[in-house]
Amino acid sequence: MEVNHINMQGDNCEPERPAHPGIFPTREAGKSDDQPAECSVDFPVSVVLPAGGTGERTGLQTPKQFCSFLGRPLISYTIQAFERVSWIQTIVVVVAKENVDLMTDIIQRFQHRKVRVVPGGSTRHRSICNGVLALGEEEEEEEERPAADRPKVVIIHDAVRPFVEEDFLYKIAMAAKEQGAAGAIRPLVSTVIATTSEGYLDHSLERAKYRASEMPQGFTYDVIYQAYQRCSESDFEFGTECLHLALQYCGTNAKLIQGPPTLWKVTYKKDLAAAESIIKETLSRSACVLTGGSARALALADALQKAVGALGMELDIIPDLMGENTRYLLKEWNFIQVSVNPCMSEVEALLTDLEAANRALLHPLVIIWVHLSASDELSVSGRVVEPAAIVDLASAAKLRNILLYGIQLHQSKDAERWERSVLKVAEITSALIREKSPALVGQLLRA
Amino acid sequence: MEVNHINMQGDNCEPERPAHPGIFPTREAGKSDDQPAECSVDFPVSVVLPAGGTGERTGLQTPKQFCSFLGRPLISYTIQAFERVSWIQTIVVVVAKENVDLMTDIIQRFQHRKVRVVPGGSTRHRSICNGVLALGEEEEEEEERPAADRPKVVIIHDAVRPFVEEDFLYKIAMAAKEQGAAGAIRPLVSTVIATTSEGYLDHSLERAKYRASEMPQGFTYDVIYQAYQRCSESDFEFGTECLHLALQYCGTNAKLIQGPPTLWKVTYKKDLAAAESIIKETLSRSACVLTGGSARALALADALQKAVGALGMELDIIPDLMGENTRYLLKEWNFIQVSVNPCMSEVEALLTDLEAANRALLHPLVIIWVHLSASDELSVSGRVVEPAAIVDLASAAKLRNILLYGIQLHQSKDAERWERSVLKVAEITSALIREKSPALVGQLLRA
Repeated sequence: MEVNHINMQGDNCEPERPAHPGIFPTREAGKSDDQPAECSVDFPVSVVLPAGGTGERTGLQTPKQFCSFLGRPLISYTIQAFERVSWIQTIVVVVAKENVDLMTDIIQRFQHRKVRVVPGGSTRHRSICNGVLALGEEEEEEEERPAADRPKVVIIHDAVRPFVEEDFLYKIAMAAKEQGAAGAIRPLVSTVIATTSEGYLDHSLERAKYRASEMPQGFTYDVIYQAYQRCSESDFEFGTECLHLALQYCGTNAKLIQGPPTLWKVTYKKDLAAAESIIKETLSRSACVLTGGSARALALADALQKAVGALGMELDIIPDLMGENTRYLLKEWNFIQVSVNPCMSEVEALLTDLEAANRALLHPLVIIWVHLSASDELSVSGRVVEPAAIVDLASAAKLRNILLYGIQLHQSKDAERWERSVLKVAEITSALIREKSPALVGQLLRA
Repeated sequence: MEVNHINMQGDNCEPERPAHPGIFPTREAGKSDDQPAECSVDFPVSVVLPAGGTGERTGLQTPKQFCSFLGRPLISYTIQAFERVSWIQTIVVVVAKENVDLMTDIIQRFQHRKVRVVPGGSTRHRSICNGVLALGEEEEEEEERPAADRPKVVIIHDAVRPFVEEDFLYKIAMAAKEQGAAGAIRPLVSTVIATTSEGYLDHSLERAKYRASEMPQGFTYDVIYQAYQRCSESDFEFGTECLHLALQYCGTNAKLIQGPPTLWKVTYKKDLAAAESIIKETLSRSACVLTGGSARALALADALQKAVGALGMELDIIPDLMGENTRYLLKEWNFIQVSVNPCMSEVEALLTDLEAANRALLHPLVIIWVHLSASDELSVSGRVVEPAAIVDLASAAKLRNILLYGIQLHQSKDAERWERSVLKVAEITSALIREKSPALVGQLLRA
């Protein structure tokens, strides 16, 4: 995000960007501060994700759960937020009949593993009910996935709330098991008022007594199953709140738990922009500088590390991706390859490694090739980089979800000039990694 | 915004991006479809903008009304949304005492005209009350601004809802004059629930009967003045809803009017990203291609117009900014200068014109210099563009809020190759105009 503040003095906020929005490996139990080792879930938990929405409120033809962010539909981010939680067994995605093929295609394309697709009903409650019933059915064991137990707890979530985190899911699952039902709440943003039938103010509610009911919600399988067995046609048709059904038909008072702001729901078109910005920011936090072992490249990398750090990005410096450093291929890292000669063989090798690791499957990554020419090369026109090489390489990489850009700079003996150049490389690097502009791949920029 | 849709079939939405978010000249009465000529306001209307918020919910040190978007604080966008409405007299901005100087500075820097700054109280109601009282006071006539009448209607709005539009303000002002009070409402996004003191579900509200109370609200001066005269210390301290005070202390049932989604309020950090994206999109809708009268440049401009149109941007083609075309200097246009020779004198002239028109004061604009070299120049190395020229020009322009980039392309006699180049220029042009990246100014890109 490129929001500048007149008086930027740092954040001390309730975070609303997740640490890992469904795109990184499972957090290991016992490693997080908020979730000590004893917080493991020893009962089966599954998820129902109603995704039958028509996208009315965004005003888009494409329902918002299928809108793409950096080439990947929103629902795939949400699915992965659950998939990375080790104690979640099955995710039942309920979609409108006409979208079953689309959904199946998404699951294959992004290699989701724990997911079953179930056709939805004509209303939200009918769809959720279908999902719950599917979890109770005998399931055929597939090659890739063993049959799951009937869950003790069912978590219901929205396909359009992609930023839910494991620690909050844990709280909901535990409270649901204990109380029969549990739901996320948030403070009200606006005052709620009752209107007369003629459109006048009747009264306003006292804000402190009320909360917005959000997702996820959790239920024991028995409570949610019974609630749907007993509820009326009118509930199926017009009801909005599962917690209400649990109360009315099972006498279960749900435990309400205040959720973090990350639970927000993509509702309006403006929210698409906010979601994209959060996803981009999360993918722009860290980059890895490859020096190829050259001392000159290392000196540049050190200077860059300072300058880029000041711009809020983490930079690790390594000579290459051998040995232990292969781990950089598996996480969210972007890459800055510093080369002291004008040929692109190091970038080619990096691309090969990334392809072997299947790294860019779920989200794009940025490679920036920084060509550091010695100052005495300035006059030797034969040594300048041939732009066509990077253009061709970038076109090929783009097909594999990798965005490749180049930056040229000359080594300068003038300290001030050198410092300016380094700062420029840092600025360009940060901007390219943050903006991930497909239109600019293959360009060779000057620092 | 760079959100792609799997199946983009166009929009048919309730718009939530304003036609003109406070950055363009006043809409002329009688020109808009929703506001026929007879809809003029023949009574004095003024505005109170409470802007004392501390930014708690965004988690930023800087209160969100002072957060900058493209170099301009949010509150300046909101002020201009009112300033461009011809029938609004005075805008009273109420800020915390410690921000009076900052606010005064913003008003000077962005040349706001109808604004008075008033120090706020310790709560939102005390601040609004200060603003209302200030509107009732005798005002000294200043050189730039004649003293305003005591308003018949006072509109109260939030500093952090920058996208309010004239037609909705008109509805609120008229209803307030007739009924004494009027307020914007929106449908509830989440179900509202009542909680027990132990944190369990008590009951959920029937969504259809309730609405979210939003801003703006309007009151006759007498109603809002009396309400604040009569209300209790506890109302001043804990009350949230002006409509409620009007009901309780003046017996005035406010008329409630459903507002457009553009009324949304910048509340959380994610909303900053959404606001920035809307502002950027609004400033990226149109560009003007200057051909300098050259036939080759004109041919490129024609091809670009088609390609860029397909990417959703409006492109006008003119030879230069003489005569009637000076009007392009005054609105929201970005510029693409096509040159058939490698010198930058046309861009220099454009920069001079823009400076004379004071055009980039309120928001940045993009200039893209496209150098179209003849195919036979390919081999003549003496004719290539000197990168330093554009770097220097771009640095100077950046200080004046103008972002200058360059693109080089070669005329090709091969039709397919030429088509590819034009498409590339269109893509790069769109991306640069949309992204407005300060880090990339002065770069000379290749198409």
